[in-house]
Amino acid sequence: MKTLIIGGVAGGMSAATRLRRLDEHAQIVVLERGRYVSFASCGLPYYVGGVIEDRDSLLLQTPESLAARFALDVRVGHEVVAIDPAAKTVTVRELASGETTTETYDTLVLAAGSSATPRAGSGDLPWHTLRTIDDVDHIAALLGAAGADARAVVVGGGFIGLEAVENLRARGVHVTLVQRGPQIFSPLDPEMAQPVVETLRGAGVDVRTGVTVVASGAGHVDLSDGSRLPAHLVVDASGVTPETTLAVAAGLTIGPTGGIAVDGRQRTSDTSIWAVGDGVEKVDAISAEPTLVTMAGLANRHGRAAADDIAGLDPDDALPALGTSIIGILGLTVATVGWNEKRLTAAGRPHRVVHTHPSSHAGYYPGAAPMAIKLLVDPADDAILGAQIVGTDGVDKRIDVIATAMVGGITARGLAHLELAYAPQYGSAKDPVNLLGYVAENVADGVVATVQWHELDEQRRDGATLVDVRTADEHVRGAIPGALSVPLDDLRSRLHDLPAGPLIVHCQVGQRGHTAARLLTQLGYEVSNLDGGWKTWAAGTASRRAGEHATAASVAAGVRA
Amino acid sequence: MKTLIIGGVAGGMSAATRLRRLDEHAQIVVLERGRYVSFASCGLPYYVGGVIEDRDSLLLQTPESLAARFALDVRVGHEVVAIDPAAKTVTVRELASGETTTETYDTLVLAAGSSATPRAGSGDLPWHTLRTIDDVDHIAALLGAAGADARAVVVGGGFIGLEAVENLRARGVHVTLVQRGPQIFSPLDPEMAQPVVETLRGAGVDVRTGVTVVASGAGHVDLSDGSRLPAHLVVDASGVTPETTLAVAAGLTIGPTGGIAVDGRQRTSDTSIWAVGDGVEKVDAISAEPTLVTMAGLANRHGRAAADDIAGLDPDDALPALGTSIIGILGLTVATVGWNEKRLTAAGRPHRVVHTHPSSHAGYYPGAAPMAIKLLVDPADDAILGAQIVGTDGVDKRIDVIATAMVGGITARGLAHLELAYAPQYGSAKDPVNLLGYVAENVADGVVATVQWHELDEQRRDGATLVDVRTADEHVRGAIPGALSVPLDDLRSRLHDLPAGPLIVHCQVGQRGHTAARLLTQLGYEVSNLDGGWKTWAAGTASRRAGEHATAASVAAGVRA
Repeated sequence: MKTLIIGGVAGGMSAATRLRRLDEHAQIVVLERGRYVSFASCGLPYYVGGVIEDRDSLLLQTPESLAARFALDVRVGHEVVAIDPAAKTVTVRELASGETTTETYDTLVLAAGSSATPRAGSGDLPWHTLRTIDDVDHIAALLGAAGADARAVVVGGGFIGLEAVENLRARGVHVTLVQRGPQIFSPLDPEMAQPVVETLRGAGVDVRTGVTVVASGAGHVDLSDGSRLPAHLVVDASGVTPETTLAVAAGLTIGPTGGIAVDGRQRTSDTSIWAVGDGVEKVDAISAEPTLVTMAGLANRHGRAAADDIAGLDPDDALPALGTSIIGILGLTVATVGWNEKRLTAAGRPHRVVHTHPSSHAGYYPGAAPMAIKLLVDPADDAILGAQIVGTDGVDKRIDVIATAMVGGITARGLAHLELAYAPQYGSAKDPVNLLGYVAENVADGVVATVQWHELDEQRRDGATLVDVRTADEHVRGAIPGALSVPLDDLRSRLHDLPAGPLIVHCQVGQRGHTAARLLTQLGYEVSNLDGGWKTWAAGTASRRAGEHATAASVAAGVRA
Repeated sequence: MKTLIIGGVAGGMSAATRLRRLDEHAQIVVLERGRYVSFASCGLPYYVGGVIEDRDSLLLQTPESLAARFALDVRVGHEVVAIDPAAKTVTVRELASGETTTETYDTLVLAAGSSATPRAGSGDLPWHTLRTIDDVDHIAALLGAAGADARAVVVGGGFIGLEAVENLRARGVHVTLVQRGPQIFSPLDPEMAQPVVETLRGAGVDVRTGVTVVASGAGHVDLSDGSRLPAHLVVDASGVTPETTLAVAAGLTIGPTGGIAVDGRQRTSDTSIWAVGDGVEKVDAISAEPTLVTMAGLANRHGRAAADDIAGLDPDDALPALGTSIIGILGLTVATVGWNEKRLTAAGRPHRVVHTHPSSHAGYYPGAAPMAIKLLVDPADDAILGAQIVGTDGVDKRIDVIATAMVGGITARGLAHLELAYAPQYGSAKDPVNLLGYVAENVADGVVATVQWHELDEQRRDGATLVDVRTADEHVRGAIPGALSVPLDDLRSRLHDLPAGPLIVHCQVGQRGHTAARLLTQLGYEVSNLDGGWKTWAAGTASRRAGEHATAASVAAGVRA
């Protein structure tokens, strides 16, 4: 039995090593186009930033170490240029010599990953992706040559773009982030992305939304709004697409998303070929439709599953993909799972929204940090459709708990009942995840009605009066224009100050507003609570202004927002 | 409608505030024996240690603030001395005046908590529990008086005992920890507790196991092994029992554990009385039997549920209790959920054991810290029965994920498929939780056989040869006596060095051992892998030696270990 594996990083190498552990007698050949295998691709930005100092630490394995431990025949600098499924052979070009040979297989694992989308710019200025060891070597060399006043343009405010920004800033580089659409970091909804924008700007990053790079030349790029930016370097993080050239040429079925179609065991349409990693489609956990998710965890897991299937282990089908993700950006941690509101709205899928702003741990224990959480819930069955968290400490924990709850079929209200580990330095007796469940339950049961930040203006136009139940001091420090100030603790004695019509109450984060809404509801008022309070409203309003500005700029420049 | 609530801390206050939000018209009276309500009981040890500097920050609410916000009638210094369920009245003694009055109720919530078990010692030396604001005021005063050479004896190495130790050490106090049984921190199994013992000793704490305090007098305590310790202060953390005096006298049903029996909505045997918090029984998630779990999270949740039921909201039944818990001790984080192996063994419940030693995040990103994980699995259905984690960073996250998985009915092998958020500073593409699932799956499917650390000696006596597959350097630095050293990467070429009989392979943590075991199995050897590798074996062996010592000391002193 001979297995060829095309691609020697996450998914491919997981398949190779697992297959060896399952079959000591198999012949396993790994063909990798690049000069390195099994490198830490998720660590590359941090090597640029100097956070990871030792370049060798990025090289998790070498062909030699893999031969010694796993008896793998790993060939770097070997590009597969064609697959012949009928003959069960691949054509391999050795890049150093240009020589082409044919390699046979019994089973083939295609783990070729994704490729960067075609670069939007051109000219004398070097554009770099941030995907290989060679990329970071080139970027490091350019930054070294540019010296203390180095300027970089990062194209695309997604995961790689933001990690590039953080690490370029860590090196003291002047950075402009260019985002085609109106909002950076699209996994977040606009009001959740706003703290990220503010953090970037606070760190001196020039954030430009609603523009594209239309040209680049020696020492500069030109944007679609007519501005010209000096630049020693462009990092192209504008996105990736599944690498399917080999698969298409071999006649493998490509799915509707453009990724290679596979079944629950990573089998392609050819019975001798498996495919794993960024190049293949996954099943989306929310829609049950094919989707593309380019996460290392899935690549590893699916590589292992392919090996299990090849070895005859009868593995379980892969779970649908949640797209759980996390990024650190300039001290913030941003994490998401499932779908965001933009996507639910675009798909016409009913959803309920909850915003909270809990502390990472008990407020009386030093170091408690605020976070913002958004939960999206299916009103029909209370299923969790997605979550977004932005904060510092404890964000990673809460997104993992919610992701696990989603896999376990725990409903939004069920989050209230999770028995999470509590001591004051780690959480709260009512953990942020529990609190989310309580709020979701109150909304679902009609205990309280909530208004979203973007619905406020319309409801006020329709006659609702906004009441700020925070303290008078808080009101003075920053209020929603036109809000009536009646602090919660005075509410019972100041009912005469309230108008007769519908009321919307709000506080800083939503909690006091909830108590006020309950009080007033029982006294016969028609009242709802501003979800997420002043904090969510302020972030959402700022994001809308920025979005409108960006959209206007895009329209003016004739590009699609 | 008038509701009386006995006890104004976690469970009682959750019930009171939730009930007010649900019923603005209810009369709600909270009767609290102590001088404070709604204080941060879990923060008390950290105030002793000076981590929490501001005493006021422990007082989350006052009677005045609760009156203003929630229109609660909160009476501190009011002890309920009797309940008359037939008359629906309670007898209340005002502690300041000694006057006794009668208060009527329509519904009653009993949230009297737990009481410390009777003190083991007596004499002139002050003994203190660590349960109230008054306790910490007294302890702080004693420490101040004792000055720089203060000496304390902490009785009991459970949650409160260890938190007391940590905080007394933070104040520079010389601390002796006295543990009746052979092992401190009984939620852990012995091999998992060993790092805690070593950390305590490394911090200069005198840990004495298998002994009790038999007497105390001015400036000293006497232990059951005949030794005398100088002491300015004894912190009694030897355990708590449900406070059921009022409930028993009122004729409420007490369950088999000694706690007040309640149904899923916290209803006692009297239709007008609910009970919540440390005084009541919960249903154990593993056995479905009544159990006692004294965690603040459950008290809060059940207080809220009682209010929901009183207000007619038709709440869901409480989930069975997992007993999820966490403690920080001298830089370590220790967390547990479900049952440990001691308890499973004592109950005669079949179980499978997995030990791992993963890193908190990707090894190539700075700051990765090791942790030890133990997972207990039901061999019949792969259900997770419990987990224990000891480490520094990332322990709280993993226990919460496992606790959530248990609630969601996710099996041990299912942990492998959780899609957890990954970036190199937060986790690994194969998260420690995923890895646990992979190991559990390999064991369940018979892909590998494992040997536990305590089974090693017997299997070697029966003829198995132990092979250390770590590098020669690692072997020299510390080896299991008599193990044959054959590094994994040389294994294929050194098969001739292996004897014909059964083999047990081991490495540092179990991972290379797994690869070696797979390799040798397929070459026809009878082989198993030492679960958790050298690290688990070393911790287990050290704990056994300490336990035997403690047991011997206990027997010599005539106490039950």
